[in-house]
Amino acid sequence: MDTPSPCPFCTIAHTSPPLPPTTFLPQNSDPKNASHPATPATTTTSPHSALDTRTAHLILSTPSLLAFLDIMPLTRGHLLLVTREHYEKLGDVGVGVSREIGQWLPVLSRVVMRTLFGKGAGADAADWHWNVVQNNGVRAAQQVPHVHFHVIPRPEYSSGSGVGRPSFVMFGRGQREELDEEEGEALARALRGELAREVVHVREVEGVDLDVGFGVGRERRGKL
Amino acid sequence: MDTPSPCPFCTIAHTSPPLPPTTFLPQNSDPKNASHPATPATTTTSPHSALDTRTAHLILSTPSLLAFLDIMPLTRGHLLLVTREHYEKLGDVGVGVSREIGQWLPVLSRVVMRTLFGKGAGADAADWHWNVVQNNGVRAAQQVPHVHFHVIPRPEYSSGSGVGRPSFVMFGRGQREELDEEEGEALARALRGELAREVVHVREVEGVDLDVGFGVGRERRGKL
Repeated sequence: MDTPSPCPFCTIAHTSPPLPPTTFLPQNSDPKNASHPATPATTTTSPHSALDTRTAHLILSTPSLLAFLDIMPLTRGHLLLVTREHYEKLGDVGVGVSREIGQWLPVLSRVVMRTLFGKGAGADAADWHWNVVQNNGVRAAQQVPHVHFHVIPRPEYSSGSGVGRPSFVMFGRGQREELDEEEGEALARALRGELAREVVHVREVEGVDLDVGFGVGRERRGKL
Repeated sequence: MDTPSPCPFCTIAHTSPPLPPTTFLPQNSDPKNASHPATPATTTTSPHSALDTRTAHLILSTPSLLAFLDIMPLTRGHLLLVTREHYEKLGDVGVGVSREIGQWLPVLSRVVMRTLFGKGAGADAADWHWNVVQNNGVRAAQQVPHVHFHVIPRPEYSSGSGVGRPSFVMFGRGQREELDEEEGEALARALRGELAREVVHVREVEGVDLDVGFGVGRERRGKL
């Protein structure tokens, strides 16, 4: 499929090869990491340096999909899940990729919520509030014509969580401020770590290995 | 998982056994229908009477998911995709069901858009505009605490398509009016027919049979 040349999401896709989420497990704190020999050879660099963060604060990079922080977040932790290939609207996406989109939405939701809201005393999933939004066409407020799902945390109003603007509660129309680079990278790093743990958790609880399929991605890297 | 007794979506699920989408192919116009011997025995009734429409204007009923018209639509064709089992938020949904949610979203999007916008002269998918929205928790405007994705068409303003209210363009906050029963059933009937054709189309183009899995659903019916 032709890729419109200035598509910002295609640019991110081109510079972000697939990387299994468990790459970001702490090297010495979880023995399960040993079962991933494909983790980039550890020299003196951390796994995080395997990601090119010049174009985006990446959370997830699979053969079919990428997730990264929105650079104009409605709230802290506002994340986008996009297709690696260029599709303008959701109706253009085939069964295979759309099943993968579905697969990652609850996983990423838990990761974002736990990172944003789950650390305090008495933290409980019952207190997690967020929207998943996907827009198609200008009349639906689609701004980048490349399929993307928004995962938008809804923190408690005036909870001191960095969102003090009344507008944020107004669905899809909150004020957006540019993401600070350093803060964005620190948040993305925390989200990658939480995602790595979540992938291990899903394997233990549901018996599904979300790292599967990245072998294909590595073969495809040469084409990028 | 416990089901809160007055959950309206659980009520719909309990009264709506799984039914393969191609059940609603016109009986004599498509020879492929013959490949579905599980279609309810045709007596003098139409396949549509196999659905209990007392609780909802159903479009899709699979072993894991249901889709039906929102009874307080933001725009004509506003549809909900819900899990058959009761999960409060998207983070509670496992990999299997969430992959199915993903699978159906583009299919249902095409079906709704083609039914609503695709019949006129010069109709083109480039003119399809719609939102996919899924809310979790009261701070995210979730009104029914049972996972549901909204598919919301965005017709051209003052296009005579039944949406003349300026508010509809305001994301997620348009005025909602109760769905007329007769109009709802006629629209649902059109959507079921379009979905049946779309399932055949996906099988032909992508080689994926979206009718697969309904056998399991039939076995599970006894448990409902």
